[in-house]
Amino acid sequence: MRATEATDQGTLGEAIAARLADLATISDEPDRLTRLYLSPAHRKAADLVAGWMREAGMTTRIDAMASVIGRLEASDGGTKTLLIGSHIDTVRDAGRFDGTLGVVTAIEVIKAAHQAGKRFPFAIEVIAFGDEEGVRFDSTLGGSKALAGKFDTKALDETGDDGVSRHQALIAFGCDPSRLPEAAVSPQHILGYVEVHIEQGPVLEKEGLPVGIVTAINGVTRAAVEIDGVAGHAGTVPMPMRKDALAASAEMLLAIEARGRAQQNLVATVGKLDVPGSAVNTIPGRVCFTLDVRSPSDQKRVRAVAEIRQSLEAIARRRGCALQVAIGHEAAAAICNEQLSDRLAAAVEDLGITPRRLPSGAGHDAMAFDKIIPFGMLFVRCRGGVSHNPDEYASPADIDIAARVLLNFLERIGSQ
Amino acid sequence: MRATEATDQGTLGEAIAARLADLATISDEPDRLTRLYLSPAHRKAADLVAGWMREAGMTTRIDAMASVIGRLEASDGGTKTLLIGSHIDTVRDAGRFDGTLGVVTAIEVIKAAHQAGKRFPFAIEVIAFGDEEGVRFDSTLGGSKALAGKFDTKALDETGDDGVSRHQALIAFGCDPSRLPEAAVSPQHILGYVEVHIEQGPVLEKEGLPVGIVTAINGVTRAAVEIDGVAGHAGTVPMPMRKDALAASAEMLLAIEARGRAQQNLVATVGKLDVPGSAVNTIPGRVCFTLDVRSPSDQKRVRAVAEIRQSLEAIARRRGCALQVAIGHEAAAAICNEQLSDRLAAAVEDLGITPRRLPSGAGHDAMAFDKIIPFGMLFVRCRGGVSHNPDEYASPADIDIAARVLLNFLERIGSQ
Repeated sequence: MRATEATDQGTLGEAIAARLADLATISDEPDRLTRLYLSPAHRKAADLVAGWMREAGMTTRIDAMASVIGRLEASDGGTKTLLIGSHIDTVRDAGRFDGTLGVVTAIEVIKAAHQAGKRFPFAIEVIAFGDEEGVRFDSTLGGSKALAGKFDTKALDETGDDGVSRHQALIAFGCDPSRLPEAAVSPQHILGYVEVHIEQGPVLEKEGLPVGIVTAINGVTRAAVEIDGVAGHAGTVPMPMRKDALAASAEMLLAIEARGRAQQNLVATVGKLDVPGSAVNTIPGRVCFTLDVRSPSDQKRVRAVAEIRQSLEAIARRRGCALQVAIGHEAAAAICNEQLSDRLAAAVEDLGITPRRLPSGAGHDAMAFDKIIPFGMLFVRCRGGVSHNPDEYASPADIDIAARVLLNFLERIGSQ
Repeated sequence: MRATEATDQGTLGEAIAARLADLATISDEPDRLTRLYLSPAHRKAADLVAGWMREAGMTTRIDAMASVIGRLEASDGGTKTLLIGSHIDTVRDAGRFDGTLGVVTAIEVIKAAHQAGKRFPFAIEVIAFGDEEGVRFDSTLGGSKALAGKFDTKALDETGDDGVSRHQALIAFGCDPSRLPEAAVSPQHILGYVEVHIEQGPVLEKEGLPVGIVTAINGVTRAAVEIDGVAGHAGTVPMPMRKDALAASAEMLLAIEARGRAQQNLVATVGKLDVPGSAVNTIPGRVCFTLDVRSPSDQKRVRAVAEIRQSLEAIARRRGCALQVAIGHEAAAAICNEQLSDRLAAAVEDLGITPRRLPSGAGHDAMAFDKIIPFGMLFVRCRGGVSHNPDEYASPADIDIAARVLLNFLERIGSQ
């Protein structure tokens, strides 16, 4: 079904799904969906999205960081603005829902309201950010950080694999980086920021729920762990005389898993593990692995990392191995605004659906607004929890529910 | 000290160490010791060793598989022959003791006997095999297998990385592969085979003993294990919903280690472990690792492999992961001859040294003689148990003890 037909005849969910299909044809690579920040495909997608915004009754602009912004003025000259957004950049070989779902859902909801002659007592800005996935440059969330007034201009010098800097890429896209300060909003004029996004996890599917309300975007600690034991011949060194770095690591991995399991709303993952110079007949002398700990509670996360470290040290000591733990990336949790979340929950309940609250394990643009602009997020069930993959899927029926929740939510905000 | 001076003035151990230093200068690579089977360096080393054999009173020949053989006739027309050997090929970037120690020690012991006018009531053949490390061709132990009459001529078609076949390389070396049958001994005329070799493990060093008597060359089972779980986002999949292939593997590794530790004279090692397509923020969906189980007891080894398999299956089942265990290389243990071992032990005791018996975790040419020719082995302490590495080291004092044990052993055989 084509988008133009869908908006006239189908459900909102079907219309959104059709537009997501259109958007998925815009890629930097011929046979898979890859739309990196400030790429030709990003430019084309930005123009398509801006056109949809105008069709939905909004005026549009593209700010200094290439965020596409569609504005629907308030009905009664209200001075406040509600932001609704997500992103239209993708990872390499992406699915079609991550980010784009939130942008298109917002546009279609505004369009439906516009077509029904509906106005709200506050302005609405729908934002399509372009720098959420962090694939092209070292730092990420450039669009939302600029909007929050906290973009560090040093990041303009970052270069991607093609040697092109963020500054150069912005100019090539048609942006003027010198106008960055104008991209920042005045927080006192902002009601808040709301984002619809696929869950990218399996919780809603497991519980048979189409949508859920996000409590917080998890904080994260990453670390690089190195274990040094003693390499040896697999045939000649008796078991009691070994200092096997891989066996030590195995014990550590189980300790990490156990600590992750010991509390709700905490996850601890070892994603990479390497045994340099390994051979089938050699006792591993060195192992490197990564650690990723996340929680909506910073306190929980910090305590878990400290306790994991203690466990690892005890295991290394007992096994006569040397241990190095280098803490890398660390980010605090971003807590969703209670009032916005409560209204999203009320809108979900209005549809007869249990308002399940859950943390977000993945990062989102909303993080950039932490302690600056109140924000809330609505998650949509996705099949198998799969994301960052062409198999990513959310059903038109679930998307339709998300759209109706968003519309209901706007009315609730408007009625206060 | 040069070998020629050493034999006149120093201990046997010093003489042997000096000749090992000479031999270590013969390499296929300029900056490290690499002497592959049938290479130019092997040819040069074979000629040097043959010269030393003649200097020691032996007649020499090179057989169809490029084994260098020096023969000392019996004193009284005795028809039996004792074989003493090891190998002069090396791994890449090798140490100077692995293999060559046994060849040079045998030559220097015969030389000492010869210079003292001593003869034995049996002939002695000192053999320098050339195909023990198995670096150049797929199969290995070609020299000892030919001698045992069990070389499979199909192996002549094997080609190394340079595209040269074993057959072609033998001809280039100066051998005639068609005369292979002549390389086989008549077992009824052979008293046995004895080999001196560095331990390549840490047991003798730990126990403060210069030498030890080998009980058996361990049998080995190798397997490739694959675990399939479900990949997922490290942030979004709650711990109880994960099927983490790496966490499952960690539990398996500890089960393997525990089974290896549960019995003496059994080792179980996971040498390689790979997490294909891993990323710091991805729950591992697939892990491949290797298993290497060795024991001087085939029964112990087979039972341990079966029990490990059961443990792995139980862990995979409990964690909802799929498991594949593919058994690869399997070799039965080769048991050392009791009479030869007892005489080696008696010779060790004669020097006031505790005759420690221990299995060999690594493979040796003697394996080719299993159930065909009785064999015994004497291990020499090596520093840190290190082998296959330039840091490989056995002290002249320990080598001297090994040489005196071998001489005493020859006298014990002769006196019966």
